[in-house]
Amino acid sequence: MKCVVVLSELDRAMKEEITKRTAAYGITTEFYESSKEATPAMQDADILFGRDAGLCAHAPKLKWACSSTAGVEPYLKPGVFASPDALLSNSSGAYGVTISEHIIMVTLELMRREPEYRDIVRDHAFRRDLKIHSIYGNRITMLGTGDIGQKAAVRLRAFGPERIVGINRSGRAVDAMDETHPIAELDAILPETDLLIMSLPGTKETYHLLDEEKLRRLPADAFLVNVGRGNAIDQKALERVMRSGHLLGAALDVFEQEPLPPEDTLWTCPRVHITPHTAGNVTLIHTLRFIVSMFLEDLDRFMQGKPLKYLVNRKIGY
Amino acid sequence: MKCVVVLSELDRAMKEEITKRTAAYGITTEFYESSKEATPAMQDADILFGRDAGLCAHAPKLKWACSSTAGVEPYLKPGVFASPDALLSNSSGAYGVTISEHIIMVTLELMRREPEYRDIVRDHAFRRDLKIHSIYGNRITMLGTGDIGQKAAVRLRAFGPERIVGINRSGRAVDAMDETHPIAELDAILPETDLLIMSLPGTKETYHLLDEEKLRRLPADAFLVNVGRGNAIDQKALERVMRSGHLLGAALDVFEQEPLPPEDTLWTCPRVHITPHTAGNVTLIHTLRFIVSMFLEDLDRFMQGKPLKYLVNRKIGY
Repeated sequence: MKCVVVLSELDRAMKEEITKRTAAYGITTEFYESSKEATPAMQDADILFGRDAGLCAHAPKLKWACSSTAGVEPYLKPGVFASPDALLSNSSGAYGVTISEHIIMVTLELMRREPEYRDIVRDHAFRRDLKIHSIYGNRITMLGTGDIGQKAAVRLRAFGPERIVGINRSGRAVDAMDETHPIAELDAILPETDLLIMSLPGTKETYHLLDEEKLRRLPADAFLVNVGRGNAIDQKALERVMRSGHLLGAALDVFEQEPLPPEDTLWTCPRVHITPHTAGNVTLIHTLRFIVSMFLEDLDRFMQGKPLKYLVNRKIGY
Repeated sequence: MKCVVVLSELDRAMKEEITKRTAAYGITTEFYESSKEATPAMQDADILFGRDAGLCAHAPKLKWACSSTAGVEPYLKPGVFASPDALLSNSSGAYGVTISEHIIMVTLELMRREPEYRDIVRDHAFRRDLKIHSIYGNRITMLGTGDIGQKAAVRLRAFGPERIVGINRSGRAVDAMDETHPIAELDAILPETDLLIMSLPGTKETYHLLDEEKLRRLPADAFLVNVGRGNAIDQKALERVMRSGHLLGAALDVFEQEPLPPEDTLWTCPRVHITPHTAGNVTLIHTLRFIVSMFLEDLDRFMQGKPLKYLVNRKIGY
């Protein structure tokens, strides 16, 4: 069998570990730095470990594609796989540490008015009188209770919020939350939210879930953080709402179109804190290590004929 | 008896509560917006609740000064009190929530290279390839294990550090830390520190405690955060050390001279993240509430002849 790995961030030790573990099963593993270089090798590849769904179209023999990403929308489109029955797994779970740290950072930056203080400091001034806010005592709503929502909730808990409410599709209980509600109850929970954290996958059901009407259900002094998928929010509606003075701050790491076009008016919208999809990139060494160890865990299962632990249901998308 | 309150940030409800609680003891309370306005009233004041030590010189009858600050260096200088036997209490404990949130924010900003990403975003660019770091897996040293160090440790714990080591004068155990060492062992602990958080009071013993030799004992890729007193670090030595390429980042909220002079070269030192003493200001409503409730707690003790709970030992300074 042949395994193709296309993850330029892997260091030497990680490549050696993957080579050793696959060789133990008699698998030949080839590493490539880019999709372009990897394309010819896909012709007889059985396993793909990487992030570019486009490679699957060149692999008629592919049996398993392990995506290094958490979100797998590109893999779900019709015709992506040359071998339609290939298994798909993702690396959801690898990003919880880095994304939850991003969530806490941008939340505190919004609440403590860090962008404004950064401007003050740029002028070498020593003002310190801006009124700030705190996670302490807040009512937090986690829209999305997967790995990211849970890891963020564990960290937020240590700051002494009043309560952390989880919202997911069915309302099933999740340990890290004080209570969990089904998405159908979102309208009732938004007005009782000081901090809304969104970590939803990109699916048909989440598309523009936060429209203008829902955004206005949040209190005027609420904060919003989105690290899931950009199109879970109606981005134009959010901009209108913010420009009208509603919401104290929004930290957006994901956008309806990425990269966010340089001319987009969102860049200069007041109280909007933009990060270029940095929450869950793989520049943190721990994240890479998690991704590799999850692949190796599923490699054992795959070779032993067991169900993959990180298998994606290609119908619902996660 | 007469109580003078000089805290312009108090809202109406807080003033009413203080008036009611003091009146119950037959105390007349007067509120002033500034030291200048309050000075004439000090002549027959028995109690002062405020932050300006200078007022004590105008109060020959003063029996108790409750400082709204945590650090009380200005009250310790000779001749500050016209009534030398007056009790002094502070509001150490009121600032733990806001300062610990500041600590987590600036730590993540340094580790996730937020100042550099802010520059990228300013150009409406969407780069996301800077290598970042994480609290997860770090060896954290808390230099200072008081209220601030403890509250920060509780929050940091939730991020999954490898360990949190506390350092204090005697090495006495502190719940929030994995282990605690006396200050005499600092030299041995610095080389095993990924993140050093300083929350020391300003005393003779802490003056320039972190000199160039100690700063160089930290690993080259360590991070430093100081929220205690500026002069606990030899500031010129820190600048030399940072300019030589040592340490990945330093977040400083306190300085040897405040305001930090506009021409100081520290403002433009690479990898130094300056905040204008914002960590523990009283613009967070919770902080003001803590300060008021601690004063009222000690008011009861004072009027009932009991020892003050937040009494400062004027010899050691905290």
